[in-house]
Amino acid sequence: MAEKDQVKALVFDVFGTVVDWRGSAIRELTAFGSARGLSHDWAQFADDWRGLYQPAMEEVRSGRREFTILDMLHRESLIKLLDKYAIKGLADHEVEHLNTIWHRLDPWPDVVEGLTRLKRRYIIGTMSNANIGLAVRMAKRAGLPWDVILGSEVSRAFKPTPQAYLGGAAALNLKPHEMMLVAAHNGDLAAAAKTGYRTAFVVRPDEYGPRKAADVATNHTWDVSTDSFIGVAEAMGCPRR
Amino acid sequence: MAEKDQVKALVFDVFGTVVDWRGSAIRELTAFGSARGLSHDWAQFADDWRGLYQPAMEEVRSGRREFTILDMLHRESLIKLLDKYAIKGLADHEVEHLNTIWHRLDPWPDVVEGLTRLKRRYIIGTMSNANIGLAVRMAKRAGLPWDVILGSEVSRAFKPTPQAYLGGAAALNLKPHEMMLVAAHNGDLAAAAKTGYRTAFVVRPDEYGPRKAADVATNHTWDVSTDSFIGVAEAMGCPRR
Repeated sequence: MAEKDQVKALVFDVFGTVVDWRGSAIRELTAFGSARGLSHDWAQFADDWRGLYQPAMEEVRSGRREFTILDMLHRESLIKLLDKYAIKGLADHEVEHLNTIWHRLDPWPDVVEGLTRLKRRYIIGTMSNANIGLAVRMAKRAGLPWDVILGSEVSRAFKPTPQAYLGGAAALNLKPHEMMLVAAHNGDLAAAAKTGYRTAFVVRPDEYGPRKAADVATNHTWDVSTDSFIGVAEAMGCPRR
Repeated sequence: MAEKDQVKALVFDVFGTVVDWRGSAIRELTAFGSARGLSHDWAQFADDWRGLYQPAMEEVRSGRREFTILDMLHRESLIKLLDKYAIKGLADHEVEHLNTIWHRLDPWPDVVEGLTRLKRRYIIGTMSNANIGLAVRMAKRAGLPWDVILGSEVSRAFKPTPQAYLGGAAALNLKPHEMMLVAAHNGDLAAAAKTGYRTAFVVRPDEYGPRKAADVATNHTWDVSTDSFIGVAEAMGCPRR
Protein backbone atom coordinates (compact mmCIF):
# COMPACT_ATOMS: atom_id res chain seq x y z
CA MET A 1 0.00 0.00 0.00
CA ALA A 2 2.17 2.84 -1.24
CA GLU A 3 -0.45 5.41 -0.29
CA LYS A 4 -0.48 4.47 3.36
CA ASP A 5 3.32 4.63 3.52
CA GLN A 6 3.24 8.38 2.96
CA VAL A 7 1.01 9.06 5.96
CA LYS A 8 2.71 11.12 8.66
CA ALA A 9 -0.28 12.08 10.83
CA LEU A 10 -3.49 10.33 11.77
CA VAL A 11 -6.34 12.60 12.77
CA PHE A 12 -9.57 11.44 14.30
CA ASP A 13 -13.20 12.31 14.20
CA VAL A 14 -14.21 12.42 17.85
CA PHE A 15 -17.98 12.15 18.47
CA GLY A 16 -18.94 8.58 17.70
CA THR A 17 -15.50 7.53 16.50
CA VAL A 18 -13.42 8.12 19.64
CA VAL A 19 -16.16 8.49 22.24
CA ASP A 20 -19.56 6.97 22.87
CA TRP A 21 -21.43 10.27 22.99
CA ARG A 22 -24.89 8.72 23.26
CA GLY A 23 -24.20 6.23 26.04
CA SER A 24 -22.24 8.81 27.98
CA ALA A 25 -24.87 11.53 27.58
CA ILE A 26 -27.67 9.21 28.64
CA ARG A 27 -25.67 8.16 31.72
CA GLU A 28 -25.07 11.79 32.72
CA LEU A 29 -28.61 12.97 31.96
CA THR A 30 -30.12 10.08 33.90
CA ALA A 31 -27.93 10.83 36.92
CA PHE A 32 -28.89 14.50 36.71
CA GLY A 33 -32.58 13.64 36.43
CA SER A 34 -32.35 11.31 39.39
CA ALA A 35 -30.66 13.91 41.56
CA ARG A 36 -33.23 16.57 40.57
CA GLY A 37 -36.26 14.27 40.69
CA LEU A 38 -36.92 14.79 36.98
CA SER A 39 -38.40 11.98 34.95
CA HIS A 40 -37.92 12.09 31.18
CA ASP A 41 -36.89 9.85 28.31
CA TRP A 42 -33.23 10.78 28.58
CA ALA A 43 -32.24 8.65 25.61
CA GLN A 44 -34.63 10.72 23.52
CA PHE A 45 -33.25 13.91 25.07
CA ALA A 46 -29.73 12.85 24.08
CA ASP A 47 -30.86 12.03 20.56
CA ASP A 48 -32.73 15.32 20.27
CA TRP A 49 -29.67 17.22 21.44
CA ARG A 50 -27.46 15.50 18.93
CA GLY A 51 -30.15 16.06 16.32
CA LEU A 52 -29.68 19.81 16.64
CA TYR A 53 -25.94 19.48 16.03
CA GLN A 54 -25.81 19.47 12.24
CA PRO A 55 -28.46 22.19 11.78
CA ALA A 56 -26.58 24.47 14.21
CA MET A 57 -23.31 24.00 12.35
CA GLU A 58 -25.05 24.41 9.02
CA GLU A 59 -25.85 28.02 9.96
CA VAL A 60 -22.11 28.62 10.13
CA ARG A 61 -21.14 26.50 7.13
CA SER A 62 -23.70 28.28 4.97
CA GLY A 63 -22.30 31.66 5.90
CA ARG A 64 -25.57 32.78 7.52
CA ARG A 65 -23.78 33.01 10.85
CA GLU A 66 -20.22 33.85 11.81
CA PHE A 67 -17.96 31.15 13.19
CA THR A 68 -19.19 30.04 16.62
CA ILE A 69 -17.57 27.38 18.81
CA LEU A 70 -19.36 24.13 19.46
CA ASP A 71 -19.71 24.69 23.21
CA MET A 72 -21.87 27.69 22.38
CA LEU A 73 -23.91 25.82 19.76
CA HIS A 74 -24.44 22.98 22.24
CA ARG A 75 -25.63 25.45 24.84
CA GLU A 76 -28.15 27.10 22.52
CA SER A 77 -29.52 23.68 21.59
CA LEU A 78 -29.70 22.72 25.25
CA ILE A 79 -31.72 25.82 26.10
CA LYS A 80 -34.21 24.93 23.34
CA LEU A 81 -34.53 21.39 24.66
CA LEU A 82 -34.96 22.44 28.28
CA ASP A 83 -37.84 24.53 27.06
CA LYS A 84 -39.27 21.71 24.93
CA TYR A 85 -39.09 19.28 27.86
CA ALA A 86 -40.47 21.96 30.20
CA ILE A 87 -37.47 21.71 32.50
CA LYS A 88 -37.51 24.99 34.37
CA GLY A 89 -35.63 26.81 37.06
CA LEU A 90 -32.15 25.43 36.56
CA ALA A 91 -29.33 27.48 38.03
CA ASP A 92 -26.58 28.68 35.73
CA HIS A 93 -24.14 26.15 37.14
CA GLU A 94 -26.63 23.35 36.43
CA VAL A 95 -27.00 24.42 32.81
CA GLU A 96 -23.20 24.55 32.59
CA HIS A 97 -22.96 21.10 34.18
CA LEU A 98 -25.32 19.73 31.53
CA ASN A 99 -23.57 21.51 28.68
CA THR A 100 -20.22 20.10 29.72
CA ILE A 101 -21.56 16.57 29.41
CA TRP A 102 -19.84 16.84 26.02
CA HIS A 103 -16.54 17.30 27.86
CA ARG A 104 -17.08 14.09 29.83
CA LEU A 105 -17.76 11.49 27.17
CA ASP A 106 -16.23 8.04 27.56
CA PRO A 107 -14.03 6.52 24.86
CA TRP A 108 -14.81 3.17 23.27
CA PRO A 109 -12.79 0.42 24.98
CA ASP A 110 -10.17 0.04 22.22
CA VAL A 111 -9.35 3.74 21.90
CA VAL A 112 -6.59 4.40 24.42
CA GLU A 113 -4.56 1.33 23.46
CA GLY A 114 -4.92 2.02 19.76
CA LEU A 115 -3.94 5.67 20.08
CA THR A 116 -0.99 4.81 22.32
CA ARG A 117 0.35 2.41 19.69
CA LEU A 118 -0.20 4.84 16.80
CA LYS A 119 1.42 7.70 18.71
CA ARG A 120 4.77 5.90 18.70
CA ARG A 121 5.02 6.23 14.93
CA TYR A 122 2.69 9.04 13.85
CA ILE A 123 1.50 12.44 14.89
CA ILE A 124 -1.98 11.81 16.28
CA GLY A 125 -4.60 14.49 16.72
CA THR A 126 -8.24 15.38 16.72
CA MET A 127 -10.01 16.46 13.53
CA SER A 128 -13.29 17.36 15.10
CA ASN A 129 -15.87 20.07 15.07
CA ALA A 130 -15.27 20.35 18.80
CA ASN A 131 -13.61 23.49 20.06
CA ILE A 132 -10.19 23.22 21.69
CA GLY A 133 -11.52 23.78 25.23
CA LEU A 134 -13.97 20.91 24.87
CA ALA A 135 -11.47 18.52 23.30
CA VAL A 136 -8.71 19.14 25.81
CA ARG A 137 -10.96 18.51 28.81
CA MET A 138 -12.33 15.34 27.23
CA ALA A 139 -8.77 14.18 26.55
CA LYS A 140 -7.54 14.78 30.10
CA ARG A 141 -10.50 13.00 31.66
CA ALA A 142 -10.40 10.04 29.28
CA GLY A 143 -6.61 9.74 28.98
CA LEU A 144 -6.51 10.34 25.23
CA PRO A 145 -2.82 10.87 24.39
CA TRP A 146 -3.18 13.39 21.55
CA ASP A 147 -0.09 15.08 20.21
CA VAL A 148 -2.20 17.95 18.97
CA ILE A 149 -5.78 19.17 19.18
CA LEU A 150 -6.92 20.61 15.89
CA GLY A 151 -10.01 22.34 17.15
CA SER A 152 -12.38 23.90 14.68
CA GLU A 153 -10.85 27.25 15.71
CA VAL A 154 -7.64 26.37 13.86
CA SER A 155 -9.29 26.38 10.44
CA ARG A 156 -12.38 28.30 11.61
CA ALA A 157 -14.44 25.84 9.62
CA PHE A 158 -16.67 22.89 10.37
CA LYS A 159 -16.41 19.53 8.67
CA PRO A 160 -17.27 18.47 6.04
CA THR A 161 -16.22 21.71 4.33
CA PRO A 162 -12.89 21.22 2.52
CA GLN A 163 -11.30 24.04 4.52
CA ALA A 164 -11.64 22.02 7.73
CA TYR A 165 -9.44 19.23 6.36
CA LEU A 166 -7.07 21.46 4.41
CA GLY A 167 -6.62 23.80 7.36
CA GLY A 168 -5.71 20.87 9.60
CA ALA A 169 -3.09 19.59 7.16
CA ALA A 170 -1.61 23.07 6.79
CA ALA A 171 -1.43 23.47 10.58
CA LEU A 172 0.78 20.37 10.68
CA ASN A 173 2.97 21.46 7.72
CA LEU A 174 1.69 18.42 5.83
CA LYS A 175 0.17 17.77 2.44
CA PRO A 176 -3.30 16.23 2.42
CA HIS A 177 -1.96 12.88 1.18
CA GLU A 178 0.28 12.75 4.26
CA MET A 179 -2.83 12.90 6.47
CA MET A 180 -5.17 10.04 7.32
CA LEU A 181 -8.62 10.68 8.74
CA VAL A 182 -10.02 7.98 11.02
CA ALA A 183 -13.81 8.12 11.30
CA ALA A 184 -16.92 6.04 11.79
CA HIS A 185 -18.84 8.07 9.22
CA ASN A 186 -18.71 7.59 5.45
CA GLY A 187 -19.62 11.21 4.73
CA ASP A 188 -16.73 12.56 6.77
CA LEU A 189 -14.27 10.21 5.07
CA ALA A 190 -15.63 11.00 1.61
CA ALA A 191 -15.22 14.73 2.16
CA ALA A 192 -11.68 14.25 3.50
CA ALA A 193 -10.75 11.96 0.60
CA LYS A 194 -11.85 14.63 -1.88
CA THR A 195 -9.21 16.94 -0.45
CA GLY A 196 -6.54 14.24 -0.80
CA TYR A 197 -6.59 12.63 2.65
CA ARG A 198 -6.06 8.94 3.22
CA THR A 199 -8.95 7.31 5.05
CA ALA A 200 -9.62 4.71 7.73
CA PHE A 201 -13.16 3.59 8.51
CA VAL A 202 -13.88 2.21 11.97
CA VAL A 203 -17.35 0.75 12.43
CA ARG A 204 -19.04 1.77 15.68
CA PRO A 205 -22.22 -0.31 15.61
CA ASP A 206 -23.56 1.09 18.89
CA GLU A 207 -23.08 4.78 18.16
CA TYR A 208 -26.78 5.56 17.75
CA GLY A 209 -28.15 2.87 20.05
CA PRO A 210 -31.00 0.60 18.99
CA ARG A 211 -33.04 3.29 17.21
CA LYS A 212 -30.80 4.07 14.27
CA ALA A 213 -28.31 1.99 12.31
CA ALA A 214 -24.66 2.98 12.38
CA ASP A 215 -22.67 3.52 9.20
CA VAL A 216 -21.08 0.49 7.61
CA ALA A 217 -18.24 0.72 5.14
CA THR A 218 -20.09 0.06 1.93
CA ASN A 219 -19.97 1.64 -1.51
CA HIS A 220 -16.57 3.05 -0.76
CA THR A 221 -13.02 1.85 -0.82
CA TRP A 222 -11.29 3.31 2.18
CA ASP A 223 -7.56 2.75 2.66
CA VAL A 224 -8.30 0.95 5.92
CA SER A 225 -11.59 -0.53 7.10
CA THR A 226 -11.76 -2.12 10.52
CA ASP A 227 -13.74 -2.35 13.75
CA SER A 228 -11.39 -0.77 16.32
CA PHE A 229 -8.41 1.52 16.82
CA ILE A 230 -6.37 -1.62 17.46
CA GLY A 231 -7.25 -2.57 13.91
CA VAL A 232 -6.07 0.83 12.65
CA ALA A 233 -2.81 0.41 14.59
CA GLU A 234 -2.25 -3.04 13.09
CA ALA A 235 -3.04 -1.83 9.57
CA MET A 236 -0.62 1.08 9.98
CA GLY A 237 2.28 -1.02 11.21
CA CYS A 238 2.08 -0.25 14.93
CA PRO A 239 2.34 -3.56 16.77
CA ARG A 240 1.74 -4.01 20.47
CA ARG A 241 5.55 -4.60 20.88
CA MET B 1 -1.90 32.88 47.57
CA ALA B 2 -5.52 33.20 46.52
CA GLU B 3 -4.54 34.23 43.00
CA LYS B 4 -2.64 31.06 42.27
CA ASP B 5 -5.55 28.95 43.51
CA GLN B 6 -7.69 30.08 40.60
CA VAL B 7 -5.23 28.88 37.97
CA LYS B 8 -6.58 26.09 35.77
CA ALA B 9 -4.03 26.05 32.97
CA LEU B 10 -0.30 26.68 32.81
CA VAL B 11 1.00 27.76 29.44
CA PHE B 12 4.64 28.03 28.54
CA ASP B 13 6.88 30.19 26.49
CA VAL B 14 8.98 27.73 24.48
CA PHE B 15 12.19 29.18 23.03
CA GLY B 16 14.54 29.72 25.94
CA THR B 17 12.05 28.72 28.63
CA VAL B 18 11.36 25.10 27.62
CA VAL B 19 14.20 24.46 25.19
CA ASP B 20 17.83 25.51 24.90
CA TRP B 21 17.53 26.97 21.42
CA ARG B 22 21.06 28.31 21.28
CA GLY B 23 22.94 25.23 22.45
CA SER B 24 20.79 23.01 20.25
CA ALA B 25 21.18 25.20 17.17
CA ILE B 26 24.96 25.42 17.59
CA ARG B 27 25.16 21.64 17.93
CA GLU B 28 23.13 21.09 14.76
CA LEU B 29 24.89 23.80 12.75
CA THR B 30 28.31 22.51 13.78
CA ALA B 31 27.40 18.97 12.73
CA PHE B 32 26.09 20.26 9.41
CA GLY B 33 29.23 22.33 8.83
CA SER B 34 31.45 19.35 9.63
CA ALA B 35 29.58 17.10 7.23
CA ARG B 36 29.73 19.73 4.48
CA GLY B 37 33.28 20.85 5.19
CA LEU B 38 32.11 24.38 6.02
CA SER B 39 33.95 26.38 8.63
CA HIS B 40 32.09 29.27 10.26
CA ASP B 41 31.44 30.72 13.69
CA TRP B 42 28.29 28.71 14.18
CA ALA B 43 27.54 30.28 17.56
CA GLN B 44 27.45 33.64 15.80
CA PHE B 45 25.30 32.16 13.03
CA ALA B 46 22.82 30.90 15.66
CA ASP B 47 22.78 34.30 17.37
CA ASP B 48 22.33 36.08 14.04
CA TRP B 49 19.43 33.81 13.14
CA ARG B 50 17.74 34.41 16.47
CA GLY B 51 18.49 38.12 16.04
CA LEU B 52 16.26 38.21 12.98
CA TYR B 53 13.35 36.65 14.91
CA GLN B 54 11.83 39.73 16.54
CA PRO B 55 12.21 41.99 13.47
CA ALA B 56 10.49 39.36 11.30
CA MET B 57 7.56 39.07 13.71
CA GLU B 58 7.39 42.83 14.07
CA GLU B 59 6.43 43.07 10.39
CA VAL B 60 3.33 41.05 11.26
CA ARG B 61 2.61 42.67 14.62
CA SER B 62 2.80 46.11 13.07
CA GLY B 63 0.27 45.17 10.41
CA ARG B 64 2.75 45.76 7.58
CA ARG B 65 2.55 42.09 6.68
CA GLU B 66 -0.23 39.54 6.95
CA PHE B 67 0.01 36.74 9.48
CA THR B 68 2.82 34.37 8.51
CA ILE B 69 3.85 31.24 10.42
CA LEU B 70 7.20 31.10 12.18
CA ASP B 71 8.59 28.27 10.03
CA MET B 72 8.30 30.62 7.06
CA LEU B 73 9.84 33.56 8.91
CA HIS B 74 12.71 31.31 10.04
CA ARG B 75 13.27 30.21 6.46
CA GLU B 76 13.40 33.74 5.11
CA SER B 77 15.92 34.67 7.81
CA LEU B 78 17.96 31.57 7.01
CA ILE B 79 18.15 32.48 3.32
CA LYS B 80 19.46 35.92 4.27
CA LEU B 81 22.10 34.41 6.52
CA LEU B 82 23.23 31.81 4.01
CA ASP B 83 23.85 34.72 1.66
CA LYS B 84 25.63 36.77 4.36
CA TYR B 85 27.89 33.82 5.23
CA ALA B 86 28.39 33.06 1.51
CA ILE B 87 27.12 29.52 1.93
CA LYS B 88 26.09 28.53 -1.59
CA GLY B 89 24.74 25.60 -3.51
CA LEU B 90 22.64 23.94 -0.81
CA ALA B 91 19.98 21.56 -2.05
CA ASP B 92 16.37 22.21 -1.04
CA HIS B 93 16.41 19.32 1.40
CA GLU B 94 19.52 20.77 3.05
CA VAL B 95 17.86 24.14 3.52
CA GLU B 96 14.84 22.33 4.95
CA HIS B 97 17.10 20.31 7.25
CA LEU B 98 18.61 23.54 8.56
CA ASN B 99 15.26 25.27 8.93
CA THR B 100 13.87 22.38 10.96
CA ILE B 101 16.67 22.76 13.48
CA TRP B 102 13.95 24.71 15.33
CA HIS B 103 11.90 21.49 15.44
CA ARG B 104 14.78 19.61 17.08
CA LEU B 105 15.68 21.74 20.07
CA ASP B 106 16.51 20.03 23.35
CA PRO B 107 14.65 20.83 26.56
CA TRP B 108 16.42 22.01 29.68
CA PRO B 109 17.01 19.04 32.03
CA ASP B 110 14.19 19.87 34.48
CA VAL B 111 11.47 20.32 31.87
CA VAL B 112 9.99 16.87 31.32
CA GLU B 113 9.74 16.07 35.03
CA GLY B 114 8.23 19.45 35.85
CA LEU B 115 5.66 19.25 33.05
CA THR B 116 4.74 15.70 33.96
CA ARG B 117 4.02 16.74 37.54
CA LEU B 118 2.04 19.84 36.52
CA LYS B 119 0.00 17.88 33.98
CA ARG B 120 -1.58 15.79 36.73
CA ARG B 121 -3.36 18.83 38.12
CA TYR B 122 -3.50 21.44 35.36
CA ILE B 123 -4.03 21.79 31.66
CA ILE B 124 -0.53 22.39 30.29
CA GLY B 125 0.18 23.86 26.89
CA THR B 126 2.44 25.97 24.77
CA MET B 127 2.00 29.73 24.53
CA SER B 128 4.57 30.34 21.89
CA ASN B 129 5.07 32.21 18.68
CA ALA B 130 5.88 28.84 17.14
CA ASN B 131 3.42 27.44 14.64
CA ILE B 132 1.61 24.22 15.48
CA GLY B 133 3.64 22.08 13.06
CA LEU B 134 6.90 23.21 14.65
CA ALA B 135 5.69 22.79 18.23
CA VAL B 136 4.21 19.31 17.72
CA ARG B 137 7.41 17.94 16.17
CA MET B 138 9.53 19.45 18.93
CA ALA B 139 7.20 17.91 21.51
CA LYS B 140 7.30 14.42 20.02
CA ARG B 141 11.09 14.41 19.71
CA ALA B 142 11.69 15.83 23.19
CA GLY B 143 8.88 14.00 25.00
CA LEU B 144 7.06 17.15 26.09
CA PRO B 145 3.67 15.96 27.40
CA TRP B 146 1.53 18.95 26.34
CA ASP B 147 -2.23 18.69 26.67
CA VAL B 148 -2.64 21.31 23.99
CA ILE B 149 -0.51 23.25 21.56
CA LEU B 150 -1.66 26.83 21.29
CA GLY B 151 0.22 27.74 18.16
CA SER B 152 0.24 31.31 16.97
CA GLU B 153 -2.31 30.20 14.35
CA VAL B 154 -4.97 29.88 17.06
CA SER B 155 -5.04 33.59 17.81
CA ARG B 156 -3.27 34.60 14.58
CA ALA B 157 -1.17 36.94 16.68
CA PHE B 158 2.38 36.99 17.97
CA LYS B 159 3.32 37.70 21.55
CA PRO B 160 3.56 40.17 23.19
CA THR B 161 0.39 41.57 21.62
CA PRO B 162 -2.55 41.20 24.04
CA GLN B 163 -4.50 39.17 21.48
CA ALA B 164 -1.94 36.34 21.68
CA TYR B 165 -2.63 35.85 25.40
CA LEU B 166 -6.36 36.57 25.27
CA GLY B 167 -6.83 34.27 22.28
CA GLY B 168 -5.10 31.44 24.12
CA ALA B 169 -7.32 31.85 27.18
CA ALA B 170 -10.44 31.94 25.01
CA ALA B 171 -9.36 28.78 23.20
CA LEU B 172 -9.33 27.00 26.57
CA ASN B 173 -12.68 28.46 27.72
CA LEU B 174 -10.81 30.21 30.52
CA LYS B 175 -10.60 33.71 31.85
CA PRO B 176 -7.16 35.34 31.84
CA HIS B 177 -6.86 35.08 35.63
CA GLU B 178 -7.31 31.31 35.32
CA MET B 179 -4.20 31.15 33.11
CA MET B 180 -0.56 31.23 34.24
CA LEU B 181 2.24 32.00 31.82
CA VAL B 182 5.59 30.40 32.58
CA ALA B 183 8.48 32.21 30.92
CA ALA B 184 12.13 33.11 31.27
CA HIS B 185 11.53 36.61 29.91
CA ASN B 186 10.26 39.56 31.92
CA GLY B 187 8.76 41.27 28.88
CA ASP B 188 6.61 38.25 28.00
CA LEU B 189 5.37 37.96 31.59
CA ALA B 190 4.68 41.69 31.85
CA ALA B 191 2.57 41.64 28.69
CA ALA B 192 0.65 38.57 29.87
CA ALA B 193 0.09 40.09 33.31
CA LYS B 194 -1.44 43.18 31.71
CA THR B 195 -4.16 40.97 30.20
CA GLY B 196 -4.84 39.38 33.61
CA TYR B 197 -2.65 36.28 33.49
CA ARG B 198 -0.87 34.89 36.51
CA THR B 199 2.87 34.65 36.02
CA ALA B 200 5.78 32.35 36.79
CA PHE B 201 9.34 33.42 36.07
CA VAL B 202 11.96 30.71 35.53
CA VAL B 203 15.51 31.94 35.22
CA ARG B 204 17.49 30.32 32.39
CA PRO B 205 20.98 31.73 32.94
CA ASP B 206 22.50 29.96 29.91
CA GLU B 207 19.88 30.92 27.33
CA TYR B 208 22.10 33.38 25.47
CA GLY B 209 25.45 31.76 26.21
CA PRO B 210 28.42 33.77 27.45
CA ARG B 211 27.85 36.77 25.17
CA LYS B 212 24.63 38.13 26.61
CA ALA B 213 23.11 38.07 30.08
CA ALA B 214 19.86 36.23 30.62
CA ASP B 215 16.86 37.91 32.24
CA VAL B 216 16.69 37.86 36.00
CA ALA B 217 13.47 38.43 37.92
CA THR B 218 14.03 41.96 39.09
CA ASN B 219 11.79 45.01 39.28
CA HIS B 220 8.72 42.83 39.09
CA THR B 221 6.65 40.76 41.41
CA TRP B 222 5.70 37.59 39.63
CA ASP B 223 3.36 35.11 41.31
CA VAL B 224 6.12 32.50 41.17
CA SER B 225 9.84 33.05 40.67
CA THR B 226 12.12 30.04 40.50
CA ASP B 227 14.95 28.38 38.62
CA SER B 228 13.32 25.27 37.13
CA PHE B 229 10.03 23.65 36.16
CA ILE B 230 10.41 21.51 39.27
CA GLY B 231 10.23 24.75 41.21
CA VAL B 232 7.06 25.72 39.34
CA ALA B 233 5.55 22.32 40.14
CA GLU B 234 6.39 22.67 43.82
CA ALA B 235 5.00 26.21 43.97
CA MET B 236 1.78 25.07 42.30
CA GLY B 237 1.18 22.14 44.63
CA CYS B 238 2.32 19.31 42.38
CA PRO B 239 4.63 17.10 44.48
CA ARG B 240 6.74 14.28 43.09
CA ARG B 241 4.31 11.82 44.85
